[in-house]
Amino acid sequence: MQRYFSKEKIDNKLILNNDDLYHIKKVMRMKDNDSIIVVHEKTAYLCCIENVKDNIEIVIKEEYEKINYNSLEIVLIIPLLKEQKLDLILQKSTELGVTKIIPFLAERSIIKLKKEEYDKKIDRWTKIVKEASEQSHRIDIPLIEKPKNIEDLIDIEGLKIVCSTKEKEKNIRLLMKNNKSCDRINIVIGPEGGLTDKEEEKLNKLGFESISLGTRIMRVETVPLFILSILNYEFMEW
Amino acid sequence: MQRYFSKEKIDNKLILNNDDLYHIKKVMRMKDNDSIIVVHEKTAYLCCIENVKDNIEIVIKEEYEKINYNSLEIVLIIPLLKEQKLDLILQKSTELGVTKIIPFLAERSIIKLKKEEYDKKIDRWTKIVKEASEQSHRIDIPLIEKPKNIEDLIDIEGLKIVCSTKEKEKNIRLLMKNNKSCDRINIVIGPEGGLTDKEEEKLNKLGFESISLGTRIMRVETVPLFILSILNYEFMEW
Repeated sequence: MQRYFSKEKIDNKLILNNDDLYHIKKVMRMKDNDSIIVVHEKTAYLCCIENVKDNIEIVIKEEYEKINYNSLEIVLIIPLLKEQKLDLILQKSTELGVTKIIPFLAERSIIKLKKEEYDKKIDRWTKIVKEASEQSHRIDIPLIEKPKNIEDLIDIEGLKIVCSTKEKEKNIRLLMKNNKSCDRINIVIGPEGGLTDKEEEKLNKLGFESISLGTRIMRVETVPLFILSILNYEFMEW
Repeated sequence: MQRYFSKEKIDNKLILNNDDLYHIKKVMRMKDNDSIIVVHEKTAYLCCIENVKDNIEIVIKEEYEKINYNSLEIVLIIPLLKEQKLDLILQKSTELGVTKIIPFLAERSIIKLKKEEYDKKIDRWTKIVKEASEQSHRIDIPLIEKPKNIEDLIDIEGLKIVCSTKEKEKNIRLLMKNNKSCDRINIVIGPEGGLTDKEEEKLNKLGFESISLGTRIMRVETVPLFILSILNYEFMEW
């Protein structure tokens, strides 16, 4: 069944945004009495569509499900990347359960963004993670923060790691062994060409531990998928 | 340093194909005496470029490296998919160490391919995995077989699994626990909409064990990356 997210509930009705209403009417071509799932505040409701021809109404029929995944919060801290690569990360990391994404301004990022462009970009990114959340039946949408400088990555709680190409001893596998009961993990991934030594040192000083992901050479957009797969594998209730 | 694969070695010279020679000359704009890495029969050589202006020659200077990854052979058996999704799987699974890819004709594949198109398609796919192998510094290139019917997946050796949405008990985590010393794993992944019951039964009869990948709902192209990440995590020498 088709899924949508709603930010507002008025009595027994859920309010959808205009894009979603267009999708229901024009793309899915739904009719009165068709059923959809609408997620509101981490609960999924079975809903019925009414009044399609005029002003569509989404009427709640019953509570459908409350999914509890692992309670691990996963924060990805990723450099600004070319659109195609960043879009892939946003979509795939949503499927794989990321909680929050913080873009950061890395020295070797080839993408530079002006402050006045932030809001527009965040809207675009949020749309991508919203759609991916619907498709993967999540009951929450990952949060995307405004791009930050490394210096702003202070006051971050939980386990903090930075994926390093220099570190040879500490690795993701050891880290997982030693942090079985962690409830929040923050992961910094470098841009193409990697973080500079200075950036990695700064992060280390902020409490981010350098770890190796092993011997494979991966493109930057593959790294978050690799880590998120491992986190699912280790923390999912099997 | 830029990397290429060579299929032929004559004395102390390695032969590259025309695409690679074009890349050296026109894209990288290399000059005489520039160095490149060329991989031939699972060994990487440091080479020197000579005679760029006329007939480029690639002269071996010394043996550069022999990389030994985990010796686990990973065979992905995937349905025909839309080009963009299949390309992503080919590129990313190469980065993550796949050994062989066997496309198969699934009932619910929306892509149909005529037999006379096979060779052209395989050429295209092979080009993608070759480039991904170069970029990820592999010393081998994944093999791509001709598309097969499920019935042809007989006589396959090693551990055999099929990713199932129905199976609830057996899962990838249990499987890893019970197969620590496996040296070859064959993984069937279904198309969008999944395998039909009949197809899954056929595969079970051929010895493919149905396993669950957990509770996340992933797009079809995410599944191979998820499994390959886990296999790297479990089998890599950390």
